[in-house]
Amino acid sequence: MASFSFLNKSGFSASVVLFMLITVASTAQNNILVFQSDFGLKDGAVSAMKGVAMGVSPDLKLFDVTHEIPAYNIWEASYRLVQTAPYWPAGTVFVSVCDPGVGTQRKSVVLLTKSGHYFVTPDNGTLTLVAEQMGIQEVREIDEVNNRRKNSNESYTFHGRDVYAFTGARLASKTITYDQIGPKLPNQIVSIPYTKPSFVNGKVKGTIPILDIQYGNVWTDIDKKLFNQLGIKIGENIKVQVFNSEKKAYEGTVQYVNTFGEVPEGSDVGYFNSLLNFSLGINMANFSEKHGVLSGSNWSIILSK
Amino acid sequence: MASFSFLNKSGFSASVVLFMLITVASTAQNNILVFQSDFGLKDGAVSAMKGVAMGVSPDLKLFDVTHEIPAYNIWEASYRLVQTAPYWPAGTVFVSVCDPGVGTQRKSVVLLTKSGHYFVTPDNGTLTLVAEQMGIQEVREIDEVNNRRKNSNESYTFHGRDVYAFTGARLASKTITYDQIGPKLPNQIVSIPYTKPSFVNGKVKGTIPILDIQYGNVWTDIDKKLFNQLGIKIGENIKVQVFNSEKKAYEGTVQYVNTFGEVPEGSDVGYFNSLLNFSLGINMANFSEKHGVLSGSNWSIILSK
Amino acid sequence: MASFSFLNKSGFSASVVLFMLITVASTAQNNILVFQSDFGLKDGAVSAMKGVAMGVSPDLKLFDVTHEIPAYNIWEASYRLVQTAPYWPAGTVFVSVCDPGVGTQRKSVVLLTKSGHYFVTPDNGTLTLVAEQMGIQEVREIDEVNNRRKNSNESYTFHGRDVYAFTGARLASKTITYDQIGPKLPNQIVSIPYTKPSFVNGKVKGTIPILDIQYGNVWTDIDKKLFNQLGIKIGENIKVQVFNSEKKAYEGTVQYVNTFGEVPEGSDVGYFNSLLNFSLGINMANFSEKHGVLSGSNWSIILSK
Repeated sequence: MASFSFLNKSGFSASVVLFMLITVASTAQNNILVFQSDFGLKDGAVSAMKGVAMGVSPDLKLFDVTHEIPAYNIWEASYRLVQTAPYWPAGTVFVSVCDPGVGTQRKSVVLLTKSGHYFVTPDNGTLTLVAEQMGIQEVREIDEVNNRRKNSNESYTFHGRDVYAFTGARLASKTITYDQIGPKLPNQIVSIPYTKPSFVNGKVKGTIPILDIQYGNVWTDIDKKLFNQLGIKIGENIKVQVFNSEKKAYEGTVQYVNTFGEVPEGSDVGYFNSLLNFSLGINMANFSEKHGVLSGSNWSIILSK
Repeated sequence: MASFSFLNKSGFSASVVLFMLITVASTAQNNILVFQSDFGLKDGAVSAMKGVAMGVSPDLKLFDVTHEIPAYNIWEASYRLVQTAPYWPAGTVFVSVCDPGVGTQRKSVVLLTKSGHYFVTPDNGTLTLVAEQMGIQEVREIDEVNNRRKNSNESYTFHGRDVYAFTGARLASKTITYDQIGPKLPNQIVSIPYTKPSFVNGKVKGTIPILDIQYGNVWTDIDKKLFNQLGIKIGENIKVQVFNSEKKAYEGTVQYVNTFGEVPEGSDVGYFNSLLNFSLGINMANFSEKHGVLSGSNWSIILSK
Repeated sequence: MASFSFLNKSGFSASVVLFMLITVASTAQNNILVFQSDFGLKDGAVSAMKGVAMGVSPDLKLFDVTHEIPAYNIWEASYRLVQTAPYWPAGTVFVSVCDPGVGTQRKSVVLLTKSGHYFVTPDNGTLTLVAEQMGIQEVREIDEVNNRRKNSNESYTFHGRDVYAFTGARLASKTITYDQIGPKLPNQIVSIPYTKPSFVNGKVKGTIPILDIQYGNVWTDIDKKLFNQLGIKIGENIKVQVFNSEKKAYEGTVQYVNTFGEVPEGSDVGYFNSLLNFSLGINMANFSEKHGVLSGSNWSIILSK
């Protein structure tokens, strides 16, 4: 497993942002409440949160991003939100609970993005990528005197249920307005620092923020505009070097394709993934496993012609 | 893995019961149907149950507790129900299918609790903890002549789909009344025997009914009232001994905290979990793995000052 | 793991078909949209699809078959659809995305079955079993000029989100009629070839298309009518031979039962599963693990008196 530190880096494509600008940004909540957590699905924690929400309003429609965020991995929580939120209608309320500091002094906030999406979460870095790519319209701190499940004050370890699900449900169902969340904060959130990808001396350098784990594809933070400075066309080869810290982990040549089926099974390819970031894969096989490439702040990639 | 036998023990906090008494107990079904099973999510079994429910009434709202109950583990099914049900509105109907005796003479029942929740399940021990903590208002046996999916009589092994989901959906949608479930039974259910925690000679003795598996925390059955007889205050140390049957599995001292963030990363703590039972954990790490502590009827714990 | 090839074989029971004929076949969409994929639940891919659907119509009700289809396993995708679809109301729209050929020339289609269910999917074999057992009423090719998410043309690798979820949502919500999907195709789909089970010389020969993985039961493609030609009655013994290609993998005698509880724990049994196909199991244990029996095109079974 790659170790994700808070220094992880990323860079998303301009296309995602464009997509959102085209969407009409409405801030009216729409009764849609989407949960994310690092709780897993083996116990009753997610269900308890949904029960609280249905107790607030039976008109809510409840969905999930994922509950398989690795325990305490705030960076991945941040990535999964920005991977999915732009595809939900404006007005949708997200509740994200990856909260290693539960019960401590980290703030509980609701971010309203310029795209009209709401994010209810501890302000611990979870908002890094949605704030950057969807834009900060306003940030409010949750007033836990008014916005906390009744009789839950003795519980210090499950704010997901007692504060976030409860507040998200009240907001999504318009039981409270956004103003009633609590006091307005400055337009900034706790952000995980990371380095942007760059084009230098005819090479593109980026990082590997995350794996497409189900298929073993390797997702970088290099977008199409940056990649295009290499002048490589579909069907041509790309030279790839991957480093784990200073150590070279992989060196090879992959064919630049639109989609996997353009090459025989077992061939290595470079392509743009569903978020329009440069990625490495193998037709019908697992690039990460075959070549020992993982993800995290210490994994970097260099592309050249 | 700890082996869960039917002799497992538990004890829940008075606070959960208090919470439910505060809730207004309404018995009117609310179109909310919540499923639990040991089916897993890799095949189509859960989906078949939900399809049957939507065929009964498209107005139903379908949710889940979990479908990752370990196969045949009735104790854990019982625990997950009581961990979550109190957070759902009164009138909610739960369908729980952990049914190693499917097709045999165990009864199929619907329990209505004093809190106004319904539980549709084989009466095989699954109801142990909800009956005890949420109270038995009434028990009825499912009349399978009227309450069984049409043309399903040749199937002997999937009552979850053919009887429980079908009946739960009809009840939740008010297609049938509670009386139409079938004949009233005495106010008792099949209960898994277990020993209650106790305070003796200045020590509190309890058991470890279950792990908080996602994070590796160890949950006991010792509630706050019992613990407080030790006279230990937040910030002070607790002496802990854990036994696997007669053999000592762990001995150590943990700091009594409200929440993990009060100690440095890696420190062992004792705290009250989201069900307000005494638990052991490590800030940002896995107590169960580090100290080899598991759960089950054979795992006991002794706390002292 | 058994290797599933496209030569896998299966045979379903006449009872499933009967069940569907009894159901009134209505083709009116009912706002129910059911997703299946090989994406897993660890990232945001499934959530992105559901977000797109809710953007099409907030009146949709979204459900799942499973997202744990093994990567690229079209046969299993086909099996899970036919295992579940008959239990959903007519008019339900299924979106199945197991799409190793994404972005290549395989067609994107919507099948309307005689039972009144819709299936939105790449035409790559996924429809094999539902077409055969639920009947082909009509097949249409998705016109991707009209039926594709706006501004998604740069993305070549996630038709699940950009085409299938979008089109399925528009169809289920009656935003478009079935005719507006695109041009009508001949009444045939790409089918994975497989051999039917048979009764020869007093023996029944079949295959093992899939395992009941949660419990380790072994599901064959032998239905009750075929089995009954052996003249074996409940409580009597069945001689079983299992072959992995030409090599004998298991030989034994099992008792023919209606349900597991009829024999002591640990006893091997033969029974008819919830799809009414002959299956092997052990009361409270895992047949597949104990006897080393797996599933796939190379696994065959012979039953005799």
